[in-house]
Amino acid sequence: MNKPTTQDAFDTPKVTTGPLPGSRRVYTSPAAAPDLKVPHREIELHPTANEPPLRVYDCSGPYSDPAASIDVEHGLARTRTDWVLERGGVEAYEGREPSPLDNGGATGKYLAREFPVRHRPLRRIPSPAGGGSGWGANGAAAASGPDGITPPQPSPQGEGAGKRHLVTQLEFARAGIVTKEMIYAAERENLGRAAAMAGAAERRADGEDFGAEIPEFVTPEFVRDEIARGRAIIPANINHGELEPMVIGRNFLVKINANIGNSAVASSVEEEVEKMVWAIRWGGDTVMDLSTGKNIHNTREWILRNSPVPIGTVPIYQALEKVNGIAEDLTWEVFRDTLIEQAEQGVDYFTIHAGVRLAYVPLTASRVTGIVSRGGSIMAKWCLAHHKESFLYTHFEDICDIMAAYDVSFSLGDGLRPGSIADANDAAQFAELETLGELTKIAWAKGCQVMIEGPGHVPMHKIKANMDKQLAVCGEAPFYTLGPLTTDIAPGYDHITSAIGAAMIGWFGTAMLCYVTPKEHLGLPDRDDVKTGVVTYKIAAHAADLAKGHPAAKLRDDAMSRARFEFRWQDQFNIGLDPETAKDFHDQTLPKEAHKVAHFCSMCGPKFCSMKISQDVRDFAAGKTGATAEEAKKGMEEKALGPKAERSEAVDPSEIEAGLKAKAEEFRAKGGEVYLETGE
Amino acid sequence: MNKPTTQDAFDTPKVTTGPLPGSRRVYTSPAAAPDLKVPHREIELHPTANEPPLRVYDCSGPYSDPAASIDVEHGLARTRTDWVLERGGVEAYEGREPSPLDNGGATGKYLAREFPVRHRPLRRIPSPAGGGSGWGANGAAAASGPDGITPPQPSPQGEGAGKRHLVTQLEFARAGIVTKEMIYAAERENLGRAAAMAGAAERRADGEDFGAEIPEFVTPEFVRDEIARGRAIIPANINHGELEPMVIGRNFLVKINANIGNSAVASSVEEEVEKMVWAIRWGGDTVMDLSTGKNIHNTREWILRNSPVPIGTVPIYQALEKVNGIAEDLTWEVFRDTLIEQAEQGVDYFTIHAGVRLAYVPLTASRVTGIVSRGGSIMAKWCLAHHKESFLYTHFEDICDIMAAYDVSFSLGDGLRPGSIADANDAAQFAELETLGELTKIAWAKGCQVMIEGPGHVPMHKIKANMDKQLAVCGEAPFYTLGPLTTDIAPGYDHITSAIGAAMIGWFGTAMLCYVTPKEHLGLPDRDDVKTGVVTYKIAAHAADLAKGHPAAKLRDDAMSRARFEFRWQDQFNIGLDPETAKDFHDQTLPKEAHKVAHFCSMCGPKFCSMKISQDVRDFAAGKTGATAEEAKKGMEEKALGPKAERSEAVDPSEIEAGLKAKAEEFRAKGGEVYLETGE
Repeated sequence: MNKPTTQDAFDTPKVTTGPLPGSRRVYTSPAAAPDLKVPHREIELHPTANEPPLRVYDCSGPYSDPAASIDVEHGLARTRTDWVLERGGVEAYEGREPSPLDNGGATGKYLAREFPVRHRPLRRIPSPAGGGSGWGANGAAAASGPDGITPPQPSPQGEGAGKRHLVTQLEFARAGIVTKEMIYAAERENLGRAAAMAGAAERRADGEDFGAEIPEFVTPEFVRDEIARGRAIIPANINHGELEPMVIGRNFLVKINANIGNSAVASSVEEEVEKMVWAIRWGGDTVMDLSTGKNIHNTREWILRNSPVPIGTVPIYQALEKVNGIAEDLTWEVFRDTLIEQAEQGVDYFTIHAGVRLAYVPLTASRVTGIVSRGGSIMAKWCLAHHKESFLYTHFEDICDIMAAYDVSFSLGDGLRPGSIADANDAAQFAELETLGELTKIAWAKGCQVMIEGPGHVPMHKIKANMDKQLAVCGEAPFYTLGPLTTDIAPGYDHITSAIGAAMIGWFGTAMLCYVTPKEHLGLPDRDDVKTGVVTYKIAAHAADLAKGHPAAKLRDDAMSRARFEFRWQDQFNIGLDPETAKDFHDQTLPKEAHKVAHFCSMCGPKFCSMKISQDVRDFAAGKTGATAEEAKKGMEEKALGPKAERSEAVDPSEIEAGLKAKAEEFRAKGGEVYLETGE
Repeated sequence: MNKPTTQDAFDTPKVTTGPLPGSRRVYTSPAAAPDLKVPHREIELHPTANEPPLRVYDCSGPYSDPAASIDVEHGLARTRTDWVLERGGVEAYEGREPSPLDNGGATGKYLAREFPVRHRPLRRIPSPAGGGSGWGANGAAAASGPDGITPPQPSPQGEGAGKRHLVTQLEFARAGIVTKEMIYAAERENLGRAAAMAGAAERRADGEDFGAEIPEFVTPEFVRDEIARGRAIIPANINHGELEPMVIGRNFLVKINANIGNSAVASSVEEEVEKMVWAIRWGGDTVMDLSTGKNIHNTREWILRNSPVPIGTVPIYQALEKVNGIAEDLTWEVFRDTLIEQAEQGVDYFTIHAGVRLAYVPLTASRVTGIVSRGGSIMAKWCLAHHKESFLYTHFEDICDIMAAYDVSFSLGDGLRPGSIADANDAAQFAELETLGELTKIAWAKGCQVMIEGPGHVPMHKIKANMDKQLAVCGEAPFYTLGPLTTDIAPGYDHITSAIGAAMIGWFGTAMLCYVTPKEHLGLPDRDDVKTGVVTYKIAAHAADLAKGHPAAKLRDDAMSRARFEFRWQDQFNIGLDPETAKDFHDQTLPKEAHKVAHFCSMCGPKFCSMKISQDVRDFAAGKTGATAEEAKKGMEEKALGPKAERSEAVDPSEIEAGLKAKAEEFRAKGGEVYLETGE
């Protein structure tokens, strides 16, 4: 089955570098930490625009910066390691002894080359009362602590022998400490804008946020508070020094994740590293390495050392490889060993399917598509085979202790998510979600950051119930959903069937959207599929930001619309999510350079261009060419309604405007009635 | 500017024929009219499925039927003409004298070849009191009739001299007459199923219909009643004998429209005819010919004579060509002449921008993107230039009389729709919508069928207000929207930015969705773009049908999900909206035929296939291979919860299920509170 990856595996991965068209990577230094260089992307606009460059969020890493020297063999600069060390509380140690099994027993030409540089892992310094491993201190005490539905409380600090060093972002946040990661993430959310700019009236967007609390301006203190309340996470393993920190939460910009990973069936180390670089180039905020088969360990090391974004994994996949793919043979020891292996490498978040309880498995028996989560099906098989609760559930506190020692965030997996419209919102799915809520409280008490995974396949009318229930049972921990797909009938187009659901659930409050590519249900995504998936999900996330009323979201839409009305074609391409495709599509019908300044396009031709006619109308009304909106309005009112003096009879636009507002209310009310009368 | 279309224009259009993979076109004859042959598509499933062929809606026309003989030079069979003639009330006449201007003055090699066959047009027989042209009888009387918000009433029948022959579907519906078009459309909506089948409990879908009244089974009488109430239309010009009638309304399946049309800049007659055939092959329910430039008349004739779906146009485009593209030179006479020209050809619906009133133009002055409707901008220019209300508004009753004489349906155009997120739901847009509501009443009183066009560019949180207001002010006339696009930042992906909005507004009650292709804002769609646009909009429409709870919608999703769980790969391809793309994607990673029966795919490989593991789990629990859901459930409960006898302690799945329902309510309530407290 395995495709030999010899040649690929030994090559140095070739990655895509350089800026996007018309863009450059810029850096700002937040007042709170002037030593930080926080990246953004600036899109240069045509001089006639009389607009400053458009600032947008940037996850592409140094790869898009011509000034940065990229050496994949060496990995990215580990700047963040200094932040971790200067905070103290961590120690470098030898780390776990690598085993051939870590790479699925691959040998000789089938063994992917090791990453050339080895870094000693960091972990939490064992506390006096903490016992050997350095994790687990105060576990019990903390676990018996607060009810997770209310925000987690600080765990006791400096109380005698039990004193525990702070390591996780949650622990610092609870202790009232603002970390550099928090400052960095806040600066990104503001696009490096000053508070004054952000607050400016014209920057405000309206919106319906369904109870979210999105601030005009994101302060580091706000990030700290959201993390302390468990409403946001900064996935940031202390061993991922290459990381450019970002925040995931309902009150921040909606983020997207791109899945990569080789499988037993296809692809190589080289391909995976480039897929990661390629995914973040187009806007992937985090990347999950879902590799299975051989060479998992080495593939992951290459990815982590070159990744500026948080990397997530599903450790049970590698654990299963270690027991030759026989679910029943999985043990807590093998799993524990895998957690430590990956935590030492610097994985930022783990998907843990601890909510698949023995008693829930029968609830899936009469489903149309059974269990569609790989981790979920593996654990269900284990549970039944052993007539026991899974070791993920029984050892959950031990898992927390390990993850807390490296600040690996939880992504509590929805192993029983629906795999079809028919199975959406069923008993199995919601039973697991309630368990995830209970586990969230325990993880919080242990100092772990937590997000919750969600479906899957859900028709539009059942999407909001997922969000509402997750908020209610998981204490507002960030929700992280896969789509959901809103219909099952379009294989080959599931990036679209799911973008519909993703945009909606993002609007309702989901913090991060896991992308779906056109190959979903059919095959492994290639480079083009990854790009299509990422761009599609940037659309869904942005549509959600707009609808939620995120203050910065509308800036980009407005810049695009102005470019459209002014026929700044090059600006339209560059402001868009995919400048290359936009330009290519334009040039297919109007290739000439001249057409990129033409006041029309191939859709209508010159005579039928509505925007050109609109400007003609403005010019005509104002009696001059290049009339401004104000000049046009005055002229139009004259022409449309006659001189102000004689307007007693004529309709006054402002009256219309006012009258309409009233009418709109009246009609909404009427609409409501109609609904109440006939709705069922 | 014009690309000579010589060669193309004189070729016989080559069109795509033959069935989709695994499909055949079948026909049923409704009890109410056994002479009708109503088309459906049946997808053959693999023998192991033990399922009858899956019946789906079919708009592809005879082109997908190998038994049909296709001769584009002759056009499709004009079966429907007999239905019209046997009803009486119409007369054949010489018709308008064609003029060179009809083809933009194209001559010689630039003039596209005429369609070889000429048919004498039909029109309503002038009533004794009706005056020469045969239209306008009772106009005034009827116009002073009912308030359009309440369903339109029958116009007076058999009252002395004023007796008016019935021609439009609305007139027949009001008179209580069920036409063959209504029977035909009802049969299609039911997928030819018998009432019993349709009513079967397991066929029912839940859903949230926002006050729509979707029946379990669609009777011809229901179609008649919906049309009589103005809540649905059957666009069916009496001169479009090639038509396979379909119904557009909130209580029927959501339909989609595909735009085609050459422009001054590109494409030819041949391309346009094939684009129409290609668009309906993938599921276009209606097609709009938005041609501009030369050869408009001849291009349209070729399209109509070969089209089994309703064809819509925007007559002002051709009228503008007749005055050399100078909006100010447009006159009622030129427009009237164009209406009759196109009505005689058999166009089924006209977009008429009669809502662009003089006083509303100034409301667009301060917009970011002004007026983005071609028709809207043309009329705005005319209004200002002449300091007058447009002739579309002042002559609206005359327009009604012409359209009623041929049963051309109104698609009241939203000339002031927003062209950007910034301009959504503004005063100009809603002022026009209210006027469209007033015009709807007049058109209804004149016996005309009416639908209303909607936006455009609207962020998610402002979409529902559009639907609610349209229902309220337009008396529930069918809404027909373009998208809406939910963000402006993704040129090259606007089929996706708009599919999000289209699915939502379709769910809320929009009856037909006008597709957007990837080339929107960039160029003219080619063949691939048309297919992508159509498939994307089938997804949006189907997602809406599912969410509304249309009884037949879920059948296809469930069939797909069963095929997935049983690894019937070929069935998965064929049940999907685009079998070719699905198969191609699958084969890119797993080309071997063997892999099409493999119990895994390239995404996970054999060891990690969740569905395979799910079946293993079922088999394990039941102690046999190929265990059914029931056997598995029993086994799982034994294994998970121990023998029934000893289950006092253990969790009982049924209890969980019950408990969850209660909890779910509780949480929804809680969620509500939270929203009220913090929402703004």
